[in-house]
Amino acid sequence: MTHRTCQAIILAAGHGTRMKSKTPKVLHKIAGLSMVGHVAHAAHQADVDQVALIVGPDMDPVLQAARKMHPSVVACEQTERLGTAHAVLAAREALEEAKDDVIVLFGDTPLLRAETISSMREKLAEGFDVVVLGFRTETPDPYGRLLESDGNLVAIREAKDCTPEEFQINFCNGGIMGFSGAHLLELLDKIENNNSQGEYYLTDAVELANAQGLKVTAIEAPEAELQGVNSRAHLAKVEATFQQRARQEAMENGVTLTAPETVFFAYDTKLGQDITIEPNVFFAPGVTVADNVTILANCYFEDAEIGEGCAIGPYARLRPGTVLEAKAKVGNFVEIKKSLVEEGAKVNHLTYIGDARIGSKANIGAGTITCNYDGFNKFKTDIGKGAFIGSNTSLVAPATIGDGAIIGAGSVITDPVNADDLAFTRARPIIKAGWAAQFRYKKSKDSK
Amino acid sequence: MTHRTCQAIILAAGHGTRMKSKTPKVLHKIAGLSMVGHVAHAAHQADVDQVALIVGPDMDPVLQAARKMHPSVVACEQTERLGTAHAVLAAREALEEAKDDVIVLFGDTPLLRAETISSMREKLAEGFDVVVLGFRTETPDPYGRLLESDGNLVAIREAKDCTPEEFQINFCNGGIMGFSGAHLLELLDKIENNNSQGEYYLTDAVELANAQGLKVTAIEAPEAELQGVNSRAHLAKVEATFQQRARQEAMENGVTLTAPETVFFAYDTKLGQDITIEPNVFFAPGVTVADNVTILANCYFEDAEIGEGCAIGPYARLRPGTVLEAKAKVGNFVEIKKSLVEEGAKVNHLTYIGDARIGSKANIGAGTITCNYDGFNKFKTDIGKGAFIGSNTSLVAPATIGDGAIIGAGSVITDPVNADDLAFTRARPIIKAGWAAQFRYKKSKDSK
Amino acid sequence: MTHRTCQAIILAAGHGTRMKSKTPKVLHKIAGLSMVGHVAHAAHQADVDQVALIVGPDMDPVLQAARKMHPSVVACEQTERLGTAHAVLAAREALEEAKDDVIVLFGDTPLLRAETISSMREKLAEGFDVVVLGFRTETPDPYGRLLESDGNLVAIREAKDCTPEEFQINFCNGGIMGFSGAHLLELLDKIENNNSQGEYYLTDAVELANAQGLKVTAIEAPEAELQGVNSRAHLAKVEATFQQRARQEAMENGVTLTAPETVFFAYDTKLGQDITIEPNVFFAPGVTVADNVTILANCYFEDAEIGEGCAIGPYARLRPGTVLEAKAKVGNFVEIKKSLVEEGAKVNHLTYIGDARIGSKANIGAGTITCNYDGFNKFKTDIGKGAFIGSNTSLVAPATIGDGAIIGAGSVITDPVNADDLAFTRARPIIKAGWAAQFRYKKSKDSK
Repeated sequence: MTHRTCQAIILAAGHGTRMKSKTPKVLHKIAGLSMVGHVAHAAHQADVDQVALIVGPDMDPVLQAARKMHPSVVACEQTERLGTAHAVLAAREALEEAKDDVIVLFGDTPLLRAETISSMREKLAEGFDVVVLGFRTETPDPYGRLLESDGNLVAIREAKDCTPEEFQINFCNGGIMGFSGAHLLELLDKIENNNSQGEYYLTDAVELANAQGLKVTAIEAPEAELQGVNSRAHLAKVEATFQQRARQEAMENGVTLTAPETVFFAYDTKLGQDITIEPNVFFAPGVTVADNVTILANCYFEDAEIGEGCAIGPYARLRPGTVLEAKAKVGNFVEIKKSLVEEGAKVNHLTYIGDARIGSKANIGAGTITCNYDGFNKFKTDIGKGAFIGSNTSLVAPATIGDGAIIGAGSVITDPVNADDLAFTRARPIIKAGWAAQFRYKKSKDSK
Repeated sequence: MTHRTCQAIILAAGHGTRMKSKTPKVLHKIAGLSMVGHVAHAAHQADVDQVALIVGPDMDPVLQAARKMHPSVVACEQTERLGTAHAVLAAREALEEAKDDVIVLFGDTPLLRAETISSMREKLAEGFDVVVLGFRTETPDPYGRLLESDGNLVAIREAKDCTPEEFQINFCNGGIMGFSGAHLLELLDKIENNNSQGEYYLTDAVELANAQGLKVTAIEAPEAELQGVNSRAHLAKVEATFQQRARQEAMENGVTLTAPETVFFAYDTKLGQDITIEPNVFFAPGVTVADNVTILANCYFEDAEIGEGCAIGPYARLRPGTVLEAKAKVGNFVEIKKSLVEEGAKVNHLTYIGDARIGSKANIGAGTITCNYDGFNKFKTDIGKGAFIGSNTSLVAPATIGDGAIIGAGSVITDPVNADDLAFTRARPIIKAGWAAQFRYKKSKDSK
Repeated sequence: MTHRTCQAIILAAGHGTRMKSKTPKVLHKIAGLSMVGHVAHAAHQADVDQVALIVGPDMDPVLQAARKMHPSVVACEQTERLGTAHAVLAAREALEEAKDDVIVLFGDTPLLRAETISSMREKLAEGFDVVVLGFRTETPDPYGRLLESDGNLVAIREAKDCTPEEFQINFCNGGIMGFSGAHLLELLDKIENNNSQGEYYLTDAVELANAQGLKVTAIEAPEAELQGVNSRAHLAKVEATFQQRARQEAMENGVTLTAPETVFFAYDTKLGQDITIEPNVFFAPGVTVADNVTILANCYFEDAEIGEGCAIGPYARLRPGTVLEAKAKVGNFVEIKKSLVEEGAKVNHLTYIGDARIGSKANIGAGTITCNYDGFNKFKTDIGKGAFIGSNTSLVAPATIGDGAIIGAGSVITDPVNADDLAFTRARPIIKAGWAAQFRYKKSKDSK
């Protein structure tokens, strides 16, 4: 079968006043990714060739967010807000270059899966001209009902216009629609605004298409996938749905979650098998975890790679650019940024590692700090294989510690240390015999 | 309309044996405030002039807790426990000074809102002599039913005394009552204890008032608001109700909560708009957060002010007396106490700041410690605007670092540093070539 | 009454392929203990004398895990998987030494309580020959029904074989069974595999026993107690059930849990009274907490003893071998390992204490590190009563700080310090006047 071309249109011009935010609604995030990013991502995964993003004025950040997830997004500005059909027509130019399939998506409906877009496209490939995405619900009252006959969708009936029989139908309009590119513009141009709101509704295309003998159908998606966001409470609900889905998938693939409800994944978290994750672990975007990793409670990861058999946490923070090779160990109150921790190296306590390489099997003592910043530039620290950095040491970057070198505790290291050498700094020790007793005596008298 | 005077009576003498605690029941806390404090706070917000607190012997801490939230609380000791009417009579002296309104509250019912007290007072102002607070519930079985007729409350019927029809009523007695001050003492003195428990019940006032032609009514409050606490499990349930309410309000006002169920607010937390709060953030009392603040996971705040556009966390702990000006940045494993962090200053990692001022745009390196305590007194640290404190530095207070000064990494600073100077301490470096290799050789032989 | 001897048989040979794990199913953990460990522990608490553990090949770690919780476990290898009766027969040798009671348990049903095993044994002591453990459920559909008559269990009917009346029964087979040792082998030998799966089912013993006039009965356990684990999702569910039970018990015994759902206990956590635990506290195994302890949010404890009146957290990590005496205080970002913290001592911030004694009322400053490891051995640190360790100090072990001694901030202490002395190290201070201003000027020019 030849590749069918596909154009997606993402409606993203809404102000989202109920969000009470200066940020455009579709830029609010779910699982670390903007909502419009989720939609563009699904479109990309479903092999959509091109995306027309319908935005309001001054919404360049929305375009940028969508483009990050789909290489080929064009912004179309909708200056007036006159309904969904009017919004789609803002992409008229894009629609004039005929595509086989056109899918109309919503920027504030971020959980739609690529598989669902593909299912809609399959129906178009089968010869349907219009496909409506529906959902079944136990509480259909407010929604438009999908009236079917012999596998065709006859009409979308608003709840208020339903007959008592129609009102019993629980198959409802999810808003998302697919069209054969050959007919869409023609249908759009026929849609009128003679309704109480004076708006042009895309759903009217169903009736028009039927009237002119086109084939119309509906397919079903889970209700959860079609949740829209109009408020911060909705945002939290959609986030919760995402997380529940991600946790279930993780467990099905062989990850132990001691308390699934306390672990938060990003949209792109990648997990291996036989991983154990204790409570309260947070994955910001960009994290990959290999097999047999143990993650203790209260960790926070972002844009980091965790190798096989690593033991992490509790209270470990891996920041962007961290790569842990196999069997590395990162313990409590440790922050690592833009660094490579080689196989079997240990960074166990109260340490900051930035812009560094830590050689395999090296041991970094408690309280070690790589002093990587001078207020203007960042400098690198290189620690050799098997090196031992004594506790509470400052490594002033650029710093080089040779393989197998030992650094004495409490040192400030400003010069390179050769392999297998011992290096440390020692300040003058001062003892004042009995001073502490006198000090306490004086202080206790003072306080009287 | 002239101001109607109001006396509240808070019943707080209960031992709370089911709490299994040496602390009086009403001192257990919800959202960082004692239960009796919540009730006194609501009374204060509802313009109650004076509070009579009914306590048992040796309950001075209860009085103190109530007084913190209402300036004018008098303790009345109830030595015997003979029922709610008897408890109220412990405040006879206060009641003899006629007030327009008297509201009887419970120290272990902390979620009652000021608005509800005001609604009761409005009924008294309308001319009712007795007002009962009721709630509607799906599980009325154990509760006394409120029997109404034409907007008047005719009787409170105990569940066991209900007719089958009365048993169907789901409007129940919440216990809290309001009285016109003119009639209360007279009613109380008529209440008898000829019941199976031999106690004097305040609810009997309803029947007595009706009998002498007074006007009695009931108003409704949400069931959740009337939850009482008799056990630690109840305490947890009431805390959960409080938190749910606070989270909803926050979201409605423009705060993003990635996982609302993991964020805990105090009774007095103040939040601006366009704030993002990641999971597992805990607000102890006294915290204010301005607009556009981002709070990453696992933070803990108490009695702190967070300015506009600040970026906090993860794992940041702000202790009492912390003030962050706009755009300040506080990162992981940082503790700040009684300090001012000026605009744009950064304290990013593994640092303790106590009793300090950090000038605007200053940068505090990883592992910096203000050494503010000598075992007896606390001393101040003053860091100038734009200063740069190198990593792992000890600032021995009293300490002064001038504007724009730079401190080298790993230093112990005991003397003032002038503006624009560089200051550092350096200990003698010692290198022992090859020592590490020999050490390992010897150790590996020893272990055989 | 003479002691009745008891043999338990734990079926633990299952591969648990749905777990997607290289670890045998019964070694996955609930509340810090392997599932088979829970079962062996319950058997031990119920005075079971001996345990026969039915395992597959190469399952020595399973045996070890069970033995940790019951002193007398023997492994019996089941090489083929031919049904539960066949599995039990793998213990034929153990069964030939007649015991009074034999209880057949499942290694993947870890929530069964000792009390329930005891109830089964009581029935055997009363003269029943076979006892089946059942549960009542609102969703009995898939389960075998227990058909009773006059207190006797007549049959276990598979759901698919039920009459419509039998299908209404909600008392279901939980799988766990007890037998009089005198009859078990005889019954097992009669069980046949003429069923669709070709397996030998232990449940067939019920019918056989009835046929030969033995007395058979069923007793009931809560459905939650009989939850089995076949997947990681089940594991999470069973963990949640365990935690809910543990949290309720804690609250009933006088512990305040601000947010019960965020606190995780181990199978052996011991808690006193009037303890307050804030959100997100994790107890790994081996922790004891005395009365009047306050634990702030985000703590992590393992194998540690917390004395009366201690104040811990937030963000405190107590590792194995930590003992805190009464009124000790451990604050944020502090890690303590294998150390004794005596009465009233304080370790408040950003500190690592390992292999140490901290004398009573000693004060450990922020950023203190005990340098206890040289890459091969661990060394001890001894800090005397009332000593004061200045901030950011490195104590190079072996280290001895006498009673009442004071250590100046930022020191590296390598030699013993006598009681009441002041000791510190001071490096050469260097000031370069105006250097910082020049540096900034140069850097700002460079960046143009």
